[in-house]
Amino acid sequence: MKKSILLIFILLLSSNTFPQNNDSVVIQSIYSNALNSYESYNNLKYLSKNIGGRICGSKQAELAVEWVKSVLENYAFDNIRLMEIMVRNWDRGEEEIAKLYSGNGSSSDLKVCAIGTSIGTGINGLKGKVIEVNNMGELEKLDKESIKGRIVFYNRIANNTFFNTFDMYGDAVAPRVIGAIEAANYGAIAVIVRSVTLSNDDYPHTGIMRYVDSVKKIPAFSISTNGADFLSKEIRLNPDCEVFLRSTCEEHPEKISHNVIAEIKGAVNPEKIIVVSGHLDSWDNGEGAHDDGAGIMHSIEVLRIFKALNIIPNNTIRFVAFMDEEVAQRGGRKYAEIVEKTGEEHIIAIESDVGGSTPMGFSIYGNDTVIAKINSFKNLLVNYGLNYFEKGYSGVDISFLHRLGIPGIGLITDSQRYFDYHHSPNDTFEKVNRRELQLGSAAIASLVYLIDKYGLELP
Amino acid sequence: MKKSILLIFILLLSSNTFPQNNDSVVIQSIYSNALNSYESYNNLKYLSKNIGGRICGSKQAELAVEWVKSVLENYAFDNIRLMEIMVRNWDRGEEEIAKLYSGNGSSSDLKVCAIGTSIGTGINGLKGKVIEVNNMGELEKLDKESIKGRIVFYNRIANNTFFNTFDMYGDAVAPRVIGAIEAANYGAIAVIVRSVTLSNDDYPHTGIMRYVDSVKKIPAFSISTNGADFLSKEIRLNPDCEVFLRSTCEEHPEKISHNVIAEIKGAVNPEKIIVVSGHLDSWDNGEGAHDDGAGIMHSIEVLRIFKALNIIPNNTIRFVAFMDEEVAQRGGRKYAEIVEKTGEEHIIAIESDVGGSTPMGFSIYGNDTVIAKINSFKNLLVNYGLNYFEKGYSGVDISFLHRLGIPGIGLITDSQRYFDYHHSPNDTFEKVNRRELQLGSAAIASLVYLIDKYGLELP
Repeated sequence: MKKSILLIFILLLSSNTFPQNNDSVVIQSIYSNALNSYESYNNLKYLSKNIGGRICGSKQAELAVEWVKSVLENYAFDNIRLMEIMVRNWDRGEEEIAKLYSGNGSSSDLKVCAIGTSIGTGINGLKGKVIEVNNMGELEKLDKESIKGRIVFYNRIANNTFFNTFDMYGDAVAPRVIGAIEAANYGAIAVIVRSVTLSNDDYPHTGIMRYVDSVKKIPAFSISTNGADFLSKEIRLNPDCEVFLRSTCEEHPEKISHNVIAEIKGAVNPEKIIVVSGHLDSWDNGEGAHDDGAGIMHSIEVLRIFKALNIIPNNTIRFVAFMDEEVAQRGGRKYAEIVEKTGEEHIIAIESDVGGSTPMGFSIYGNDTVIAKINSFKNLLVNYGLNYFEKGYSGVDISFLHRLGIPGIGLITDSQRYFDYHHSPNDTFEKVNRRELQLGSAAIASLVYLIDKYGLELP
Repeated sequence: MKKSILLIFILLLSSNTFPQNNDSVVIQSIYSNALNSYESYNNLKYLSKNIGGRICGSKQAELAVEWVKSVLENYAFDNIRLMEIMVRNWDRGEEEIAKLYSGNGSSSDLKVCAIGTSIGTGINGLKGKVIEVNNMGELEKLDKESIKGRIVFYNRIANNTFFNTFDMYGDAVAPRVIGAIEAANYGAIAVIVRSVTLSNDDYPHTGIMRYVDSVKKIPAFSISTNGADFLSKEIRLNPDCEVFLRSTCEEHPEKISHNVIAEIKGAVNPEKIIVVSGHLDSWDNGEGAHDDGAGIMHSIEVLRIFKALNIIPNNTIRFVAFMDEEVAQRGGRKYAEIVEKTGEEHIIAIESDVGGSTPMGFSIYGNDTVIAKINSFKNLLVNYGLNYFEKGYSGVDISFLHRLGIPGIGLITDSQRYFDYHHSPNDTFEKVNRRELQLGSAAIASLVYLIDKYGLELP
C-alpha cells in the first residue's frame, strides 16, 4: 500500500500535465519555455536573411511558403497543408533612380523607392518641376494649371505627438495610398511621397497604393525623410529645380500562391478552432523581420510551446500563415471564404502583425461578452507586462472572419520603434530582440491556453 | 462690451497657463512638448560621444560636471550650483589582456575587463590553471587544495526566465561583487566572472566589487558571455589549460568631485522641494548612455518642459545629478547628509536609473498614504503606457533620504534590453531611441506636475 502511494506520488510529480486550477503555474511554464528557447529567433533569422523580402507573387514568397511548411513538418504538427490562392504579381524591377537638378548644373541623388503596385516611369524615366504640398487638402486649393505637367511632392511631416505610433501612421498615410489619384486628377505626371515614419533617416518606406480606373495612372515614389527635407529645402531655394525619376516596376499576370496551415488537434472538441496567425508575405525592400516575420514566429511558437509542455488543448489550435496581407489580402479573404463555405466552427482568431517588440496586451474585436471574458484573464497576465485589454481592431487578415461572427484579437506591442522599420530596408533581423519576440509568443500562447480552457462565455 | 469679451477670449486662448482642473490637457501638452523636442537627445549624444565613460575620479567625470552645469545655465534655471563631495579614484589603466593556453601550443584571446575597483595583476600579469564553478555555493563544496593557486572561473549562466531582467540581475550578480573574497579565502590567485547579461556577445560587463580587510585582495575580471562559453568548453576539453591575465588598474587617493544641482523655484512654497534625479557618473568602458545618461536627460527635461510650457510649480522642483552612484554612492550620501543637517523640507525624491527605454510606470517607496496618492494619478497616465504603480524600491542615490522619512519613486522602464548594454562597451548612444527617452521625460514631468499640484496627502 505504502509503495503504491509512493508510486502514484512519483507519477504525479513526473507528469507533464498540470493541475487543473493552477493556471499561473502553466503560464509561468509557458513564459519559461519561451524565454529559454532560441528556435523561433533562429527561424526568424533564416526567414529574414536566407529568404528576405517576400512580396506576394515573388520567388521569395514561394520559398517562404515551402520553408514554413518544412518548419511545421519538423515540429510534426497535425494536418499541415497549403491553401491555394491567386495573388497579384507586382515586381519592382531595377533599383529606382531619382536625381534633383538644382539648375546650376549640379545634381543630387534622392533616396526613393516605388510605392507598392505603382506603374513604372518607363525605361527612359521622366523629368519635371516639382510642386510641394503638405497634404491632399492643400493640393486641392492650388491653381490646377500650376500642377499640370509637374511632379507633386507630398511632404506631410508625420505627427510626433501621438503616443501610439499606429495613430501617427493612420493620420499620415493617405497621400501614399491615394495621393497619385488626386495628383493625376490635376494633371501631375508623378508623385513623390514623404515616408510615413518618425525617424529621420535615409530609408524610403514603401507600402500599398491604389489607382482607380477613371483616373490616369501615374508613377508614385516614396522618399526618405532626410531626402524629403533636402528636396523641400532645395525647392525653396530654387523653385524651378527639376527632378528626374526612373522606375521599371510593373504588374505581371496573377500567380498561384498559398496560405500555410498546421494544427494541434483538440482532444475534446477537435471541430472547434482557435486560429493563431501572422502574414508570411512582406514588402520586398527589407527583410520583413518585424513585419511580419515576428507574427509568423509568435504564432508557430504557440503550437511549439503547447507540444513542448504537453498541453493538450480541448479545441484545435490552428496556425495560419496568411499570404498577401500587403497587397490585396487574398489569403485572408480566401480563408474566410472557405470557412463560410465549409461552416467550420471558429472560436476566435488571433493575429500578430505589429512587430516583435515587447507585448503590451490585446486589442479585442468582439461583443461585450467576449471583451469581458478576455478581460477576466488579465489578472493572470498583468505580471508579464500585459495591461492593455481593450475593444478595438484585431488584424487585417482575420478581419474577414468578423462578418461571419467570429471574434478576433490583435496582439499589441510597444509601438515606439515600429515605424522606424516598417516597409523599409531597415526592417531587418537585427532590429528584433529575442526576449521581446519570445514575450510575444508567450503572451499569445498564454491567452490561447486560457481561451481554450475556459471558452468565451461568461459564467 | 462685446469687444472686451472678445479681448478676454483672445487673452485666454493665447495664455500659456492652463485651466485649474484640466490635468489631462496639461499632461497632453507635456507629452507633446517632450515628443517634439530633440534637445535632450542631442544632449545625450554630447554626453555619450564627446565625454563618454565617466567613472568618479576620472577626468571625464569632471568634464561631465562642468558640461551639465553649462547645460543648466543655458536653460537659465534657478540656483544652479555644485555640491562638493570626495570620491574614490579607481583607474582601469591599460587595456586588459587575457589569453587561454590550451596546452597544444595554441593560444586564444579572451574578452575580459577588470571588475570595478579590482586590484591589478601587476605589469607582468599572472598565469594559472582554471577551476570552473557555477556559483559560490559550488566553490564552497570543492576540495580547498584544488582551488589553491588557481584562477576561479564563476560561470553562472544568468536565468533567462525572469520577466523583469532586474530580477535576473539580482539573482546572478553576487559572484561579481563578492566572488573574489570567497575565492581568495580558498587560496585562489584571481577570479574570472561571467558577465551578468542575457545577451550572447563579446562584451565584458564591469560593475562594482568588494574586498574585505581580513582576506587577501586578488584581481577580478569579467568575461563576455561568448568568452565564458568558449573558456568553459576548452576547460572541459583540456582541464589543464592555463589562462594568462593582465590588468594594470589601481586605486589612487580620493579626489574632489561634485553633485550638480538646479531648480525651478516654487511660487507658493519655495522651501518645499521635489527632487528629480539621475546619476552623472558611469562606468568607464562604455558611453553611459542608458546608465545613466538617460536618467540625467529625463530629469533635466522635467525642468525644461515646465519652463517651456510656463508651468509655475507651487513647490521647488530641484534637479540633482548625483556623482558616484557606481562606486560608493558618495553623491547620494552627501546629499542626504546635508538635507539632514539643514532640515530642508523634501516632499519626495524621484530617480531615473533604469535606462531610456519605454517607461512602464513607477516603483514607490513610501507609506500607504503616499502609495495610494500616487496611485490616484494612474487614471491620468495609463493612456501613456504607465501601468505599473507599485510599492517598491526607488533608486540608489535617493535611498539615503528614506531614513529621513522622505519617500522616493523610481521610474520603471521596459527592462528587456537593459542588461544587454549595462556596464559594457555596448552602452552607447545608438541604443537609445529618442521617442522612448522622451516618453520617460514626459512620464516624470507629468508625475511631478501632479505631485506638485495635489501633494501627497489623501483628501
